[in-house]
Amino acid sequence: MKREIFANLSPLDHRYSVDEDKLWDELAQYLSEEAGIRYLLKVEAALAKALAALQVAPAEAAAEIAEACEQVTPEEVVNEEAKTRHNIRALVNCIQAKVSPQARPWVHFTATSADIMDTANAARFKEFTLNVFLPELKNLISTLIRLAMEHKDTLQVGRTHGQFAVPITFGYAISGYVERLGTAYLRIQQAAADLRGKMAGAVGAYNAASLVIADPLELENLVMQELGLQASPFATQIVEPEYILHLMHEYVTCLGILANFADDMRHLQRSEIKEVGEYFAPSQVGSSTMPHKRNPWNYEHVKSLWKAFMPRIITVYMDQISEHQRDLSNSASSRFLPELAAGTTLALRRLNKVTAKLSVHHESMQANFAEAAKMIVAEPLYILLASVGHPDAHEAVRLITLQAEKTGEPVAELAKKDRELAPYIQKLSPDQLRVLEDPGLYTGQASRKTELICRKWTTVLFEGGQ
Amino acid sequence: MKREIFANLSPLDHRYSVDEDKLWDELAQYLSEEAGIRYLLKVEAALAKALAALQVAPAEAAAEIAEACEQVTPEEVVNEEAKTRHNIRALVNCIQAKVSPQARPWVHFTATSADIMDTANAARFKEFTLNVFLPELKNLISTLIRLAMEHKDTLQVGRTHGQFAVPITFGYAISGYVERLGTAYLRIQQAAADLRGKMAGAVGAYNAASLVIADPLELENLVMQELGLQASPFATQIVEPEYILHLMHEYVTCLGILANFADDMRHLQRSEIKEVGEYFAPSQVGSSTMPHKRNPWNYEHVKSLWKAFMPRIITVYMDQISEHQRDLSNSASSRFLPELAAGTTLALRRLNKVTAKLSVHHESMQANFAEAAKMIVAEPLYILLASVGHPDAHEAVRLITLQAEKTGEPVAELAKKDRELAPYIQKLSPDQLRVLEDPGLYTGQASRKTELICRKWTTVLFEGGQ
Amino acid sequence: MKREIFANLSPLDHRYSVDEDKLWDELAQYLSEEAGIRYLLKVEAALAKALAALQVAPAEAAAEIAEACEQVTPEEVVNEEAKTRHNIRALVNCIQAKVSPQARPWVHFTATSADIMDTANAARFKEFTLNVFLPELKNLISTLIRLAMEHKDTLQVGRTHGQFAVPITFGYAISGYVERLGTAYLRIQQAAADLRGKMAGAVGAYNAASLVIADPLELENLVMQELGLQASPFATQIVEPEYILHLMHEYVTCLGILANFADDMRHLQRSEIKEVGEYFAPSQVGSSTMPHKRNPWNYEHVKSLWKAFMPRIITVYMDQISEHQRDLSNSASSRFLPELAAGTTLALRRLNKVTAKLSVHHESMQANFAEAAKMIVAEPLYILLASVGHPDAHEAVRLITLQAEKTGEPVAELAKKDRELAPYIQKLSPDQLRVLEDPGLYTGQASRKTELICRKWTTVLFEGGQ
Amino acid sequence: MKREIFANLSPLDHRYSVDEDKLWDELAQYLSEEAGIRYLLKVEAALAKALAALQVAPAEAAAEIAEACEQVTPEEVVNEEAKTRHNIRALVNCIQAKVSPQARPWVHFTATSADIMDTANAARFKEFTLNVFLPELKNLISTLIRLAMEHKDTLQVGRTHGQFAVPITFGYAISGYVERLGTAYLRIQQAAADLRGKMAGAVGAYNAASLVIADPLELENLVMQELGLQASPFATQIVEPEYILHLMHEYVTCLGILANFADDMRHLQRSEIKEVGEYFAPSQVGSSTMPHKRNPWNYEHVKSLWKAFMPRIITVYMDQISEHQRDLSNSASSRFLPELAAGTTLALRRLNKVTAKLSVHHESMQANFAEAAKMIVAEPLYILLASVGHPDAHEAVRLITLQAEKTGEPVAELAKKDRELAPYIQKLSPDQLRVLEDPGLYTGQASRKTELICRKWTTVLFEGGQ
Repeated sequence: MKREIFANLSPLDHRYSVDEDKLWDELAQYLSEEAGIRYLLKVEAALAKALAALQVAPAEAAAEIAEACEQVTPEEVVNEEAKTRHNIRALVNCIQAKVSPQARPWVHFTATSADIMDTANAARFKEFTLNVFLPELKNLISTLIRLAMEHKDTLQVGRTHGQFAVPITFGYAISGYVERLGTAYLRIQQAAADLRGKMAGAVGAYNAASLVIADPLELENLVMQELGLQASPFATQIVEPEYILHLMHEYVTCLGILANFADDMRHLQRSEIKEVGEYFAPSQVGSSTMPHKRNPWNYEHVKSLWKAFMPRIITVYMDQISEHQRDLSNSASSRFLPELAAGTTLALRRLNKVTAKLSVHHESMQANFAEAAKMIVAEPLYILLASVGHPDAHEAVRLITLQAEKTGEPVAELAKKDRELAPYIQKLSPDQLRVLEDPGLYTGQASRKTELICRKWTTVLFEGGQ
Repeated sequence: MKREIFANLSPLDHRYSVDEDKLWDELAQYLSEEAGIRYLLKVEAALAKALAALQVAPAEAAAEIAEACEQVTPEEVVNEEAKTRHNIRALVNCIQAKVSPQARPWVHFTATSADIMDTANAARFKEFTLNVFLPELKNLISTLIRLAMEHKDTLQVGRTHGQFAVPITFGYAISGYVERLGTAYLRIQQAAADLRGKMAGAVGAYNAASLVIADPLELENLVMQELGLQASPFATQIVEPEYILHLMHEYVTCLGILANFADDMRHLQRSEIKEVGEYFAPSQVGSSTMPHKRNPWNYEHVKSLWKAFMPRIITVYMDQISEHQRDLSNSASSRFLPELAAGTTLALRRLNKVTAKLSVHHESMQANFAEAAKMIVAEPLYILLASVGHPDAHEAVRLITLQAEKTGEPVAELAKKDRELAPYIQKLSPDQLRVLEDPGLYTGQASRKTELICRKWTTVLFEGGQ
Repeated sequence: MKREIFANLSPLDHRYSVDEDKLWDELAQYLSEEAGIRYLLKVEAALAKALAALQVAPAEAAAEIAEACEQVTPEEVVNEEAKTRHNIRALVNCIQAKVSPQARPWVHFTATSADIMDTANAARFKEFTLNVFLPELKNLISTLIRLAMEHKDTLQVGRTHGQFAVPITFGYAISGYVERLGTAYLRIQQAAADLRGKMAGAVGAYNAASLVIADPLELENLVMQELGLQASPFATQIVEPEYILHLMHEYVTCLGILANFADDMRHLQRSEIKEVGEYFAPSQVGSSTMPHKRNPWNYEHVKSLWKAFMPRIITVYMDQISEHQRDLSNSASSRFLPELAAGTTLALRRLNKVTAKLSVHHESMQANFAEAAKMIVAEPLYILLASVGHPDAHEAVRLITLQAEKTGEPVAELAKKDRELAPYIQKLSPDQLRVLEDPGLYTGQASRKTELICRKWTTVLFEGGQ
Repeated sequence: MKREIFANLSPLDHRYSVDEDKLWDELAQYLSEEAGIRYLLKVEAALAKALAALQVAPAEAAAEIAEACEQVTPEEVVNEEAKTRHNIRALVNCIQAKVSPQARPWVHFTATSADIMDTANAARFKEFTLNVFLPELKNLISTLIRLAMEHKDTLQVGRTHGQFAVPITFGYAISGYVERLGTAYLRIQQAAADLRGKMAGAVGAYNAASLVIADPLELENLVMQELGLQASPFATQIVEPEYILHLMHEYVTCLGILANFADDMRHLQRSEIKEVGEYFAPSQVGSSTMPHKRNPWNYEHVKSLWKAFMPRIITVYMDQISEHQRDLSNSASSRFLPELAAGTTLALRRLNKVTAKLSVHHESMQANFAEAAKMIVAEPLYILLASVGHPDAHEAVRLITLQAEKTGEPVAELAKKDRELAPYIQKLSPDQLRVLEDPGLYTGQASRKTELICRKWTTVLFEGGQ
C-alpha cells in the first residue's frame, strides 16, 4: 500500500522526510511500523529458538518458525488484524499460516503479546540508539571539538544577562557544549544498553511457561541473549516503564543541550552582534519580501524542534502508571515514542550540517570586545584592589563605573586618577597593571580549559579511552 | 513521490491511517502537507484578486494568478525549495513560472511569507474544525443523548472515591458528558470562528503595501473576506499566537472530557463491576495468550491518545514567545499542530464507534446496587433525622454504620432498633420511611436532570436553537 | 500558630512575600488557607440563609449559623480536623459547636463537602480576579498605552529572526502588547465571571435535598445568588472541571504574553543593542563580582516566573479526569491553583514597576537604525520595481544585496548604478524615490496603528466603552 | 519576622506543614529560605578557608570569616538586600560588616554570586536527599518488603485491562514496587552524589582567580572537598544544568512509581473489589454527608500530589537553556525546585504511614478469585493443548470461552466434554490436569519471584550488600 508522501499528516513523514531523505531511511529502518513488525518477528523467532534449545519445542519447528518470520510482511499482518482486531494475534496467525501443523503450536508458545512487543521495542530502541543516534551525536561532537580547538584563543567578550561580562575565547564557549554533549553521549549509551525485554507471560509470573518448563527464567534469559538484551528484573504484563522513561529523558536532555547551543548561535547572528553566520547558498532566499535577509533559520529550526518534542516527555511520565498487572492506556501513547527519537536525530543532523560550515566573524568579535573593554576592566580592578588589602574594593569600583557611565571615560582611566585608590594601585605588579591596560589578557583559564575538555572527549569518544 | 504506508514513522500516518482510512482521508484534506500547500495557493490567489479589486494590479493578472494557483503541485514546490531553501519563495516562483511576465510582479505583491502561511493555517484549521471535527463531535453527542434518554431511569449506584455513594441512574451519568461536550462544542466553534489571518507585511506595519495603496488595511480586509476570515487586530510578522492557542486549548480540553468518559466506561467494564461492555466481534481476540479476555481496549485507546496528545499543548504555550517582530522558533513546532487536531478527531471517532454499540448490563447494575443498598441508606437516614431536629444526626448515623460493618446487619435495620433514634423516626412520613426501605427511590433529580440536559442540547445542536 | 517567614518552603511565602509585602497581603486575602476557610464559612452561611428562605430551616437557625460562621477560626478547624480527619466535617463541627441544639441540624444541611469547597473556590477565584488581578493588569496596560503613545513616532528598526528587517516605531512595538493584553483582560474577566458553584449533593443529583425540598435547584440558585455566582449546569460531586480550567488557561496565556514582552525588553537591553534600560538605583549592585553590570534582572525574573508556573497548567488538564461521580485525586492538586494566580500577579506587578520607569535610549535606536538602513531598503526597492512592472524584482534586488554584502556599498547606491534597473527606476515618483533615500520614511502604518490600538483599549478599559 | 501559618499561600507552608509538622521541620532544615542562606554562608566560609590554605588570604581572615558566617541571619541579609537589590552582594556585605578591615577583602574573594548559589544548592540538595529523602524511601521499601513476604502465597487474581487475567499472589504484586523503588533508590542516591558545585567565577573561566592564584582549579577543588562535593567539569557562570535536572528527573520518576502504587491500592479498595482497606480511626469521618463512607483518601492524596508536582519537571527542562555564559531566567524558576523535593517526600511519608497499617482482606481476595476461576483456566488449557501438539489451541479455547460466556458453564467443564479436544487432553499428566481443576495452582513463579526480589533488596539496602 503506497501513498503520496505529501498526503501524510506528520511533518516527520512529509516535509522532514524529504529534506533529509537519506537520514530518514535510516530512521525508518528502526522506527517505522514496518521496522516495528520486523522486530516483533525477530522476537518470535528468538522465542522459538530458545524453546528448542530447552528441548521444549522440536528444533525443526524452531527452524520453520525462524524462516516464516523472515517472510511475513506488514501488509499480511494488517490484513489479518482486520479480523482478529489484535495485532499480535494477527502476527502469530501469519507466522502459523507459513509453518507445518507440527510447528504451529510452538509459535508464540507461553508468550503474551507484551512479551513480544516490549522486547521488540527494547531491541529496536537500543539498536537505533547505538547504530544511528550515537554516531550522529559523535559527528556533532567531533565538529564542535574542531571548532573549539581552532578558536581556543579567539578572543570574545563573555556575556551574562545579555550584558558584557568578562573575556573568554570563542573556542572556550564551544567547548562547554563538547562537555555537555559528551556527558549526554555516555548517559544515552548507558540508558540504551540498560533497556530490558521480558518473556514472563501475561502477568509477569511465568504462569504459562511454568506449566512446561522447569525454570522459565532460563527461557527468558535465552531469548534476551539471542537479542542482545537483558531481562527485566520484575515485569508485570509489561516491562517496568522506567527503563524506557530513562532513555527518553536522556534524549530530551540531549535535545535541550542542542537547543541551548542553537539559541546561542542564533543570538550571535543578531544584526548588532554578528559574530557568527550560517552558510548561505548563492541561490538561497532569506525572505519572500526582504531580499537582504540572511536569517539564522537552521538554528531557529533546532530550537523549534525542541519546543515540539520536549513536552512529550510528560506522556512518558504519565505512562508510568498502569493499573495492577497493566492496563492498555500506555499502548497508543507509546507508539509515538519513536517520533521523539526521530525528532531528536533530525535536530542533531541539522545542527551538525550548519555548524560544520559556520562562519566565525573575527572582526565583529574584536569590535564587540573593544566596545566592552571600557567597562569590563571593573572586575579585575576590584579583585586586584582587594588582593592588596582594599577593604571595600567592590563598592569603590562600582562608584567608578557609575562615573564612567556618565562621563564616557574608561574605567581604567578613572581609576588611575582616583586619589583614594592610588596607594593600592601602587602595590600592583607590572603584570597585574598590564591586565588593566589590556583586558584581552584577562581570559583566565579559557584557553587551557578548552584544551582540557577537547582532549578528554577525544580520548573518551574517539580513541577508545572510555 | 509515493511511499509504503508502513514505512512511515508516525502512527498517524501508518497504523491509525489504515485503521480509519475514510476518516483519515478527510483529515488529510485539511491537515496534510498537500492540503497545507493548497491553502497557501488559495491565499495567494485571494491576494491577487484583492489587488485587482483595489486596482493595484490588472484584473487579467489576478485571473492568471488564480488559475496558476490551481495548477501548482506540492512536488513542484518542494523541488523549487531545494534551490531557494525557502518554502514560500519556492511557492511564489512556481506560480510566477505559470503566468505571463505582465502578471508576475503581482504574485505575492506586498506580502511576506507569514502573511500567506498564517492566513492559510487559520483558514484550514477553521474549515477543518467546522467541516470535520464538529460534525464528528455532534455525532458523539447525539449517541450520548440517545444512551442517556434510554437509561434515564436505569438505576445505578453512584460512586465517589470508587466507593458506593448514593443512587443515580445510568442515563444521568451519561448526561453529564452531554453537558460537558455540548459546552465544548460551542467553545470550539467560537474559537475556530475567531481564528485570524493577516496581510500586513514583514513586521505587521503594512510597510510595503503603504508604498502603493492608500489604505492597506482595506487590502487586508478584502483578502480575509475572500477566505471567510477576520484580520488580526495587531500582527507583527505573525498573527498574535493566542488565537490558535485558544483553539488548541479547546481541542485539548475536549480530549480531556473524552478521556474522562473513556475512563469511566473502562472502569465500569472491570470484571468485578461489569456494568457495561464493548461490542466484541465473533472473530475478535482479546489476548494472544488468554483466550477468555474481553478487554475494554477501545476506551483504553482513547485514554492513551489523551496521554499522547494533551502534553503537546505546552508547545503552543511556548510558542507565545517570539522575539521582537518574530523569530522563527515557532515554525517547525507549529507544523505539528495539525497532528493535535487529527489525534483528537481519531479519539472522537473511536469513542463514537464503540459507544454506539455499547452493551449495558442491567443485571450487574442491579446486583451492584443491591450490594450497596445495605449501607447507602446512611445519607437519607441522616438527612431525615436532622430534618426532624436530631442535633447530631450525622454522628449518630456514623456510629450505626460502624456497627453495621461489624455485624453485617443493614443500616436501616439497626436504625429501627435504636432507642435513641426512635422518637425521631416516629416523626418521619410514610414516604420518607419508604426511602429507607427502598433506597432505589433515593435518586433525587437524576431522571429529571437527564431530561433537562438532553432536551437543552438537542435544541441547541440539532434543532438550530442555539 | 506563627512561624518565621524565612522558615517557609515556598518562595511565594518567603522571598517574594517580603519583596512585595503589600501586594502579598492582598493575595493572602483571597488565596491563603485562612482566606479559603473564610470562604467556606461564607458558603455555609449562604446555605443556611437559603434553607430559611425556602422555609426548610427556621430563620433563627440561619441567623445563628451566619453569626457562628463569622466567629470560627482556621485554628479551630484544624484542631477539629485532627479528630475527624475530614476538613469539612471539622468545619461543620466547629460551626455546630457555636449554635443552639435547635440550629445544629441545619448546619450544612443537605450539602456534601464538595458543594461547599467548589462553591467557595469559585467565589474566591472570581473575587480575586476581579478585585486584585484585573486592576493590576489594567495598570500595566495603562503604562503600556502611555509608553506607546509617547513613542508612536520614535523610529526603530524592526527585527525578525534577530535580523534587521524593515522600520517600525518603538510605540508600535509596544502597542502590540496593549492589544494582546487587552484581549487577555476581557477573556480573563469573562472566565472569572463564568466560574460556577454547586449545591447538588453527594453525586450531583440533589438526592438529599430532594427528600425535604420540592425543587432543590431553587435552593442551589438561592445560594449562588447570595454569593454572586451561577450554578453549574451539571455537577457530579464536583463542578465540571472545565470552568476553573478555562480560567487557569487564561491566566497562563496572560503570563505567556507578559513573558514575551519581558523577553523583548530583555533583549533590547543587550550591550550591543542598548535601546532600553531598566532603572538602576544609585545603591544598586548588578553583580557581586563585576561592579559595572546593569542587568535586565526584572525582565529576566518575569520570564523565569513564566517557566516556573506555565507548566503547572498540565495539572489542571489532568484534573479533568475524575472517576465516576468523582475521585479525590484532584484534591491536593487543586489546592495549589491559588499559587498559579499568585505567581501571575507577582509577574504582573514586577513588570509594571520596571516598565513604568523604563529608559528609552533614542541615540541607540537611531544608531542601530542607521546601521540597518544600508540594507533594509531592499524591500521597498523590490516592491517599487515590481509595482512598475519588473517581472523578477525580488531576484534582481536579492542579487544586489549579495553585491552590497561583498562591497559594503549601500543597496540604494548599487541600485541606482544598475543598468538593468534604470528603466524601472525612472518610472518611480519623487515620493517613492525619497523612501529609497531615507528608509526612515518607510514605517508604513506604524504610527497610525499605534494610535488606533491605544484609542481602542482606552475606550474599552478606561472609559467604560466596552 | 513571623506570620500566621494559615496566612501562607502554599499548601506546603500551611496545610501540609501542619499535617506533618515533624517531617516538615526536617524539610525546612534543608529546603527553606533560612536553610538556603545558611548553606550560602557555609560556601563563603569554605571559600575563605581554601584561600587561606593556598596562602592567598591570611589564616586569621579565614577564621574571622568562618565565625561571621555562623552569625549572619536571614533577616540581616534581607534588610541589606533592600539596599543592594542583589541577594549575594547583600550576604557579602553582612559578612564583611562582622569582620575586621583586614579580613574584609577576602570575603567572597574571586567568586561570582553563582559560585556561591549553585554550590550551596548542590550541597543542600545532596544532604537533603541523603539525610531525609532516602531514609524515608528506605522506610517505605522496608514496609513493602514486610508486606510482600507476609503475602507471598496469598492467592489473588491478576488483572490486566481491569479484567481477570491469570493468578498471582498479593505479595508478588507488592514485590514489583519493591523492585522499582529499590532501583529508584540507587539512581537517586547516585544523582545526588553527582551534584556539582563550582568556584570558577563570572563566566566559568576562573578569570578573577587567575590574577592571584597559579592554579585556580585547585582553589575550586579545595572548596568542593570542604563541602563534600565535586567540581563541575565545565561551568559558565552556572553549573551545567543537567546535574540538577537528572536529580529532579529521578525524584519525579520515583513519585510516578509511588503514584502507580497508590493507584493500585486505591482501586483494590473499590466497593466491588474490596481486597485491601486503609485504616480508619474510630472517630474518623469519611464524608460530611454520607456517614458510611470509608474512602481511600490517603492513596488518592498521593496520586494527587503526583499530578501537582510531576508537570513541574518541564520547568527544569526549560532551564537547560541559558543564553551565552548565562541569563538569569533560570533564577526564580529554580527557587521552586525545593518544593518538588518536599512534595515527593510528603507523598512518601503519607504512603508509608497508610501502607504500614494496610488491612488485607483475604475473604474478598478469595471470593474474587473464585469468580475469576471459571474463565481464567483458558490460558493453561490453551498452553497445555498446544504443548501436546494441538495446532490451533488458542482458537479452539477461544471458541470454548465464547460458549462459556453464553451458557455460564466453566471453561474446564466445557473442555472436558469437547470431543475434538479429547485426544489432546488424554495426553496431559495428572499434575497438568490438576491445574485445570484448581487454577489456584497456576501461580507460576509468583511466590519464588517475591522471595528473590525481597531478598535482593534486603541485601542491597539493609545489609550493606550494595
